[in-house]
Amino acid sequence: MNKNEILSDVLRHVDVRTFDARPLIQAYGDMAFQARNLSRATDILNRMLADRDCSVILTIAGSLCSAGLKDALALMVENNMVDAIVSTGANIVDQDFFEGMGFRHYKGAPHAVDDQKLRELGIDRIYDTYIDEDELRECDMAIAEIAGTLDPRAYSSREFIQAMGAWLDKRGLGCEHSLVHAAWKKDVPIFCPAFSDCSAGFGLVHHQWNNEKHLTIDSVADFRELTRIKLEAGDTGIFMLGGGVPKNFTQDVVVATDILGEERPMHKYALQVTVADERDGALSGSTLQEACSWGKVDTAFEQMVWGEATLVLPLMVSDAWHTGHWKQRVARRYNRLLATSQATA
Amino acid sequence: MNKNEILSDVLRHVDVRTFDARPLIQAYGDMAFQARNLSRATDILNRMLADRDCSVILTIAGSLCSAGLKDALALMVENNMVDAIVSTGANIVDQDFFEGMGFRHYKGAPHAVDDQKLRELGIDRIYDTYIDEDELRECDMAIAEIAGTLDPRAYSSREFIQAMGAWLDKRGLGCEHSLVHAAWKKDVPIFCPAFSDCSAGFGLVHHQWNNEKHLTIDSVADFRELTRIKLEAGDTGIFMLGGGVPKNFTQDVVVATDILGEERPMHKYALQVTVADERDGALSGSTLQEACSWGKVDTAFEQMVWGEATLVLPLMVSDAWHTGHWKQRVARRYNRLLATSQATA
Amino acid sequence: MNKNEILSDVLRHVDVRTFDARPLIQAYGDMAFQARNLSRATDILNRMLADRDCSVILTIAGSLCSAGLKDALALMVENNMVDAIVSTGANIVDQDFFEGMGFRHYKGAPHAVDDQKLRELGIDRIYDTYIDEDELRECDMAIAEIAGTLDPRAYSSREFIQAMGAWLDKRGLGCEHSLVHAAWKKDVPIFCPAFSDCSAGFGLVHHQWNNEKHLTIDSVADFRELTRIKLEAGDTGIFMLGGGVPKNFTQDVVVATDILGEERPMHKYALQVTVADERDGALSGSTLQEACSWGKVDTAFEQMVWGEATLVLPLMVSDAWHTGHWKQRVARRYNRLLATSQATA
Amino acid sequence: MNKNEILSDVLRHVDVRTFDARPLIQAYGDMAFQARNLSRATDILNRMLADRDCSVILTIAGSLCSAGLKDALALMVENNMVDAIVSTGANIVDQDFFEGMGFRHYKGAPHAVDDQKLRELGIDRIYDTYIDEDELRECDMAIAEIAGTLDPRAYSSREFIQAMGAWLDKRGLGCEHSLVHAAWKKDVPIFCPAFSDCSAGFGLVHHQWNNEKHLTIDSVADFRELTRIKLEAGDTGIFMLGGGVPKNFTQDVVVATDILGEERPMHKYALQVTVADERDGALSGSTLQEACSWGKVDTAFEQMVWGEATLVLPLMVSDAWHTGHWKQRVARRYNRLLATSQATA
Repeated sequence: MNKNEILSDVLRHVDVRTFDARPLIQAYGDMAFQARNLSRATDILNRMLADRDCSVILTIAGSLCSAGLKDALALMVENNMVDAIVSTGANIVDQDFFEGMGFRHYKGAPHAVDDQKLRELGIDRIYDTYIDEDELRECDMAIAEIAGTLDPRAYSSREFIQAMGAWLDKRGLGCEHSLVHAAWKKDVPIFCPAFSDCSAGFGLVHHQWNNEKHLTIDSVADFRELTRIKLEAGDTGIFMLGGGVPKNFTQDVVVATDILGEERPMHKYALQVTVADERDGALSGSTLQEACSWGKVDTAFEQMVWGEATLVLPLMVSDAWHTGHWKQRVARRYNRLLATSQATA
Repeated sequence: MNKNEILSDVLRHVDVRTFDARPLIQAYGDMAFQARNLSRATDILNRMLADRDCSVILTIAGSLCSAGLKDALALMVENNMVDAIVSTGANIVDQDFFEGMGFRHYKGAPHAVDDQKLRELGIDRIYDTYIDEDELRECDMAIAEIAGTLDPRAYSSREFIQAMGAWLDKRGLGCEHSLVHAAWKKDVPIFCPAFSDCSAGFGLVHHQWNNEKHLTIDSVADFRELTRIKLEAGDTGIFMLGGGVPKNFTQDVVVATDILGEERPMHKYALQVTVADERDGALSGSTLQEACSWGKVDTAFEQMVWGEATLVLPLMVSDAWHTGHWKQRVARRYNRLLATSQATA
Repeated sequence: MNKNEILSDVLRHVDVRTFDARPLIQAYGDMAFQARNLSRATDILNRMLADRDCSVILTIAGSLCSAGLKDALALMVENNMVDAIVSTGANIVDQDFFEGMGFRHYKGAPHAVDDQKLRELGIDRIYDTYIDEDELRECDMAIAEIAGTLDPRAYSSREFIQAMGAWLDKRGLGCEHSLVHAAWKKDVPIFCPAFSDCSAGFGLVHHQWNNEKHLTIDSVADFRELTRIKLEAGDTGIFMLGGGVPKNFTQDVVVATDILGEERPMHKYALQVTVADERDGALSGSTLQEACSWGKVDTAFEQMVWGEATLVLPLMVSDAWHTGHWKQRVARRYNRLLATSQATA
Repeated sequence: MNKNEILSDVLRHVDVRTFDARPLIQAYGDMAFQARNLSRATDILNRMLADRDCSVILTIAGSLCSAGLKDALALMVENNMVDAIVSTGANIVDQDFFEGMGFRHYKGAPHAVDDQKLRELGIDRIYDTYIDEDELRECDMAIAEIAGTLDPRAYSSREFIQAMGAWLDKRGLGCEHSLVHAAWKKDVPIFCPAFSDCSAGFGLVHHQWNNEKHLTIDSVADFRELTRIKLEAGDTGIFMLGGGVPKNFTQDVVVATDILGEERPMHKYALQVTVADERDGALSGSTLQEACSWGKVDTAFEQMVWGEATLVLPLMVSDAWHTGHWKQRVARRYNRLLATSQATA
């Protein structure tokens, strides 16, 4: 098979509005094991959306935006279901922004084509998904291009991602829904605490390498900005897809307010969809009770669901969509807060 | 139980020199499943240490330095077995640097004490391990203190971690072995691509919040510096403990050389110890064959071991220690390279 | 809390007819990872139901009938979607037959009540599900009672389970849907190759212990009978929930026909829903490709789904129900075949 | 490659006497996570071996005897470290007895040769291990042959496995160590509660199919006999490798004594080495605390280790071997007890 044949079957994103998961989620609630856990987690999601005083932070780890979940996540941003996002870089840049440029992901299979062969053809693989490497290089260079248009100062990843949203808007969005674009329109901050760890890293290294005067990405600024949001928000709920840096970073923000002498309450609601295990002691699979020992997460409304996100997320978001508490939610537009200078510094 | 009683049983780090894992690793090689995988992985570790042209990059994710593996990792740095490190922040700051300050971790148990109770007592829990939260706050503040002594410019995390090593040295190292301290002495760069995502984040936010003139941590600089190392090194081997950002970041560096127009070979050797699964499509469990499709890892000498690191790492490092190829290795001291100004910028 | 308070929240079984999973399953098919795998698995399930020449064998491992899946499985039997069942004993006896006697399972939680306390109260726990131990003893004794009514000869587990179905029918079924009862009515054989490994074991040991003349359960007869079904059926598809003995036993039957000199084709369709991993080399997580090396499973239509059954099964069965290929299926009533004497012996 | 080339690299079994794991196990005990769990589990293993009043039951699930652990397990039998065994059939028949006949397992790799190709060559695969299918057929037929020499009555699997041991002895043992042979010599009962679910099933179906007068395998007898052992033994410890039927069957025996009106204490010591997870509610990964709610396992000395058995078991048995409590243990020779007629029936 040649490259075009291998890259012929376009991956599509689920539209959670086209089916109503509520009867299923309700039935799950009377069953056992992960069905019941998922039902309870969805109930907590609805509670946090119904709680007028609660800001919702979404965390994303794993290759979710390339796996068909991009539109479900963008839908949440477009409809005031999410007030801030903390993500791995790849979801935001290589996957969402990449499709926003008009590129697509393709359906493949884990062992269908030898990886050496894929390499020769310039096809990158994520488990059962293919990417045209030439297109990914264009994505890298778009980052470099955006960097070139910005003043050579220190930026938070959030600021840079805002610029990416504006760039997409100016160029014309190449897909129906984009997290980066929707977040730009809705002033929803997106943070990538390890922003160089993705396609952005390639573009930004290129930028710095070739420009003596260059911008920098200050990872401390990310944490400082998220802390400002927590200070402003007071009550918060966290909806975690996977673990990793986004989970830890977002939980830590409670402690940060304390360290600045401005203690805020622990996260009031906490959900995690994960396949990680607690028994290796790593953060990704650590229980939300454990997070309570650190003063990060309250235990009244917490629930982990042990399941793979492509299976689980469409059900949760469909339920929340049709339940409709988002209709009463007000857009917090935290990017506007962050555009103001910090009160105490 | 009161706090002192709960924090009474000190966790100790394994000294892999005190036993010789070679006969066991050899026997594993004739068995099946993960025993055979571990044997092959150890063989590849020895090969990369014996390869005079190969620089070794260690990546660390998961709570390993608090789990009794700190000394084994430090031993590798002290004895020229590692030329660069990419890690999550917690391993470096909350765990290694923390013990370097003289603090200790304590043996606990997952459900022995209620997490609400631990919270009230100021005890933080990592699965079966306890930490005195007051001591952790001192660690945060040490970071703020170090930041206060540095010029207000953009730093790579590596530069900051070097300063932490110097600070420990000046203060007097509070434990026998420390990654941060050993790396400082041996000029081994340590990168934390998400440096704010740990105790360092607390200290640095405190620093920025309270100082209008403050330093920043440029995550692009991390990637640029690691790319410089790859450009200089040519052949590289990667020894990955867990996945996460360190795995991805380190694999990406091959692509980065390409993007700068200075293509270098894929990582020649690649090992990963992990409990992650490939079936969720996330990077942590993705196969090293998949990494080949991206042009990151060569497949001649790659091996994953499915096992928890506290069980597996002591065996691998003990075998490598007693096999002794490190005796012929020369310290690369890449920090010295990185102290020079970049050729092309 | 006293026993009644703890056993107050009755677990209910999902009715997959009350929602239509087809739009979701279709959307999953264009996504990635386990969503796409689930979609493909459901497609194969529909194919095997549409294939007039194919007999469907369901295998059940894990605590599924106590977890809310009993009715979905019984629905398949009631509507000619399943021609034979191979199961662990607990699903059939402790869980399905138990509810058929009128007893119920109760919603609990993993760490809500100390297990020592549960023991004192006579409450048995399955992860988050509670059982009244006194009721379970009644179930054991019902088995002993049934054994007492049968001639003292060697039975296959299937024969005994038929007698259990008749016993339930005579007594009056104590719940709406029961696998054991439906299988008795529809002449669908149910095999438990380790029949003593459950509540049946208690009842049957009691029977043998107290009756010098007693029946026996011949596990060879189980395998011989399933082999007869394969000889008669020719084409077969296997729908596996979990792994364990039922998976292995059912796959082995292809080899058995060969050993009797009457070779039949490999299983033409094969699905497995599992959370097991292939990397420990155990049968439960072994790939269906591996089963092909043994001559057991054809690889044209095979699919594993990595997911917990309470989440996944309702979606699959709902899709199959609404797709409706079962309407054209004819009841094979293999119990009638097995009631005849074996041709060659 | 032809069949001989593929079957050229013989798998070998670890000899745990050739290295001393004690210093490592001791160091593990001061670390965290699974290292510490393994250390505690080994301590409990030593305690149960030192407890003069305690009978030790070993349970085996997963492909362990083909994976290089056969000799370690046989060593335990040969040296009075085990008083009874409950196993899946494959470990005993396809793997141990098979090697006892002089056949061998071969080192392979998961994706090295296409499984269709392996099938054509008559090579069966277990993950990374190859078996000559022709030899396995000889093993099946040896079972049929043994069955042909026995009176046509109902046997427990234990009785049949004893006959297999005698058959091996008469023929001359074809390998250095064999569980089946050692158990026969030491009068250690081996139970396979699903005895047809392996190579034995093929041989026994062949036997029954071709002999109107044939023996049967009464799975109730297995449970009754193990119950007799528990009645005789009083205190018991269980050392579980994997979960599955052997785990459940062995735990159930405590309840069985109660049902016969002869209550005996819960298993006093309980260890499990497993990679299973508790979150699917299945028995294999269920906690040993959960088993306490059922009145099966005492919680004072119980420990699960989350690890793959080929990695973990050699360490545990080496430690127990060198610690040496087995030297004071007396062979219980429970086969002799079971050869007597049952008191109460």
